[in-house]
Amino acid sequence: MAAPEIDRLIQVLARLPGLGPRSARRAALTLIKRKESSLLPLIEALKDAAEHVRTCSQCGNLDAADPCSICRDARRDPAILCVVADVADLWALERTAAFKGRYHVLGGVLSALDGIGPEQLNLKSLFRRIEAGEVKEVVLALGATVDGQTTAHFLSDRLQPFGLAVSRLAHGVPVGGELDYLDEGTLSQALRSRTPMG
Amino acid sequence: MAAPEIDRLIQVLARLPGLGPRSARRAALTLIKRKESSLLPLIEALKDAAEHVRTCSQCGNLDAADPCSICRDARRDPAILCVVADVADLWALERTAAFKGRYHVLGGVLSALDGIGPEQLNLKSLFRRIEAGEVKEVVLALGATVDGQTTAHFLSDRLQPFGLAVSRLAHGVPVGGELDYLDEGTLSQALRSRTPMG
Repeated sequence: MAAPEIDRLIQVLARLPGLGPRSARRAALTLIKRKESSLLPLIEALKDAAEHVRTCSQCGNLDAADPCSICRDARRDPAILCVVADVADLWALERTAAFKGRYHVLGGVLSALDGIGPEQLNLKSLFRRIEAGEVKEVVLALGATVDGQTTAHFLSDRLQPFGLAVSRLAHGVPVGGELDYLDEGTLSQALRSRTPMG
Repeated sequence: MAAPEIDRLIQVLARLPGLGPRSARRAALTLIKRKESSLLPLIEALKDAAEHVRTCSQCGNLDAADPCSICRDARRDPAILCVVADVADLWALERTAAFKGRYHVLGGVLSALDGIGPEQLNLKSLFRRIEAGEVKEVVLALGATVDGQTTAHFLSDRLQPFGLAVSRLAHGVPVGGELDYLDEGTLSQALRSRTPMG
């Protein structure tokens, strides 16, 4: 239909989450028509991200520095560790500005269906951090899905020998919902009224 | 919140049509996590588009060649000229595979509200093509909006002295709708039963 250069751009854009074929076409057209104000800045932003953004070797966050700015922030309480499935969940919690501890990004949740077992998650580095002795409380901030709660129970069991306080987000997270889709208010509330893992 | 490199990428993505702040965050995260399979191919596709895609000096289409592949296609009937507002509308009509003539992209429609008058549209090149004498029929394929229909009537008046057949898309285009949002079937039907401009 269109030139191969345009078709390829549409195809690459359509693979992004949230963009179907129609919105990918509109996005491609906007980019091509607004070369100076849209297309070239996007190339620069992508190049910058590709060059500078890396995974934090401590917590699994994405940042331009390793350790990331949260791990390096001395005002953050190293005694409270918040375990999240994904960087998107970390961002969602940071937007609430309600948490002053540090994070650990698992990189997913346990899922029999998707074949994700404990080996596929960043557990080694989690237990290495806990064995270091600074952490006194672990908050399991995982989605209220079956897989999220399975993962929370699995971690709660594995953390028991360390004698830490282990809590999870308060009910208030809608059952079946994902963290990244919640509004800041609900997330703040759920964080404040977190309950001990029973 | 996140690294400035990530924030900037999110901001640039959020300016694209169809992407809100949340989907821009998800897209940015996907791009960064899938550097090899998503981010680098997108940079290449954008660079290719920036370098090769240009506006056809005859019809206003976007293509890697000038004149574009439709203007150069000898199997296309030069006697029928389809006038569209935007390249997205041209793509929508091409997807129906129901039109075998050539196109002229106006680059918009007349709009008192947006301050778009005849000078802002590609009319000079349209009349230059018509004065060349090859065109026998003009199909005004403009949206069934007030501005689209105003533009159709304006063009119909201006085309009268040339003694051409001037038609517009058949009713079937939903009133208030935009061409780019129609399904191929409705568009094909509307094109086949186009009615003389009265």
